[in-house]
Amino acid sequence: MDLATCLKKMELVGVLAFATVDSDGAPQIRNISAIHYESDAIYFFTARGKNFCRELLEDGRVQILCYTKYKEMIRMSAKAYAVPEEEQAKWRDIIFEEQPYLANVYPGDTRSIGIIFCIDRAEVEYFNLGVNPIFRDTYTLGGGTITKKGYNITEKCIGCGKCRTKCPQRCIEEGKPYRILQNHCLHCGNCYENCPVKAIVRE
Amino acid sequence: MDLATCLKKMELVGVLAFATVDSDGAPQIRNISAIHYESDAIYFFTARGKNFCRELLEDGRVQILCYTKYKEMIRMSAKAYAVPEEEQAKWRDIIFEEQPYLANVYPGDTRSIGIIFCIDRAEVEYFNLGVNPIFRDTYTLGGGTITKKGYNITEKCIGCGKCRTKCPQRCIEEGKPYRILQNHCLHCGNCYENCPVKAIVRE
Repeated sequence: MDLATCLKKMELVGVLAFATVDSDGAPQIRNISAIHYESDAIYFFTARGKNFCRELLEDGRVQILCYTKYKEMIRMSAKAYAVPEEEQAKWRDIIFEEQPYLANVYPGDTRSIGIIFCIDRAEVEYFNLGVNPIFRDTYTLGGGTITKKGYNITEKCIGCGKCRTKCPQRCIEEGKPYRILQNHCLHCGNCYENCPVKAIVRE
Repeated sequence: MDLATCLKKMELVGVLAFATVDSDGAPQIRNISAIHYESDAIYFFTARGKNFCRELLEDGRVQILCYTKYKEMIRMSAKAYAVPEEEQAKWRDIIFEEQPYLANVYPGDTRSIGIIFCIDRAEVEYFNLGVNPIFRDTYTLGGGTITKKGYNITEKCIGCGKCRTKCPQRCIEEGKPYRILQNHCLHCGNCYENCPVKAIVRE
């Protein structure tokens, strides 16, 4: 798996879930399909009067989730920004040309109520629940940073092997210390809860 | 459309997107399918070591999004809570029985790392983009409240009809004042931006 394939899968799935936070700090989620993909950025359309637009302008943080028929989840974390005024019409018309149904929703010149946002810097997580053990990896778009997550076994490990027997994905290797195979970890915390000497730390 | 049909559609779609906020106030989103449906509540499974669990325990606000093949979006807004300790095993085992794949992810007794959350009070929004004009409605589960959204035309309306010509869904009726058919409104804001006397208010 790699970033380009993740973006291609997002484009093929088409309808994605976008999460933001509102002015009360509450989670907000909706489907968006009016998206144009470039190799180094995505552009998407919404209307200026929607709460989604307000949340993007006021906060900008967004997570985008794509689920494929093969039990793959692709998640993009980013800060979106409105493209400059002089580029708005260009990207809007590209999106309307690629997705003719949009002209039914916003016929004629009513598309001018739209605003185009761009994401060109993001963390992209890939998670496949359709393989055993599960597989995960993280990529960056435009130099985005990777957030540490999950669990690690420290030097305090006494090598008892209890974590390995408790791991639902059998993704802990023997060694000094034992080692979690990060690409196969569910982040469920069962090793962490069961280590008798608290040698496992949460990132 | 009604609440029971919305819940049935959510159950049939199966894999839903769940949005929460993390301790930085950032949006977090992931797919969840380990869900059991009752007529008056939903129960879902996650692992205690996941960030999702932490966000639910610390904040609890969640929005759940379902997208059907017929361009319908169903969105549930709620506060989730962990079910009492003595009921955890019952609901967990029901979910594992209904969805056998879960035993591959959490084999044997590793399912004990799971925690069951319940939603029994929620706002449920239905939005259909597959009809023209679009259709939306809102229902409540367990006495949840309905959040006002969108636009209204006030008595300041001078009856010029400009809003009606600018509405992409043609969902504004003539009258004194003109009136927005709320079940067909996109919330795009085009009427609001174009009213010459600022007679239109945003909720």
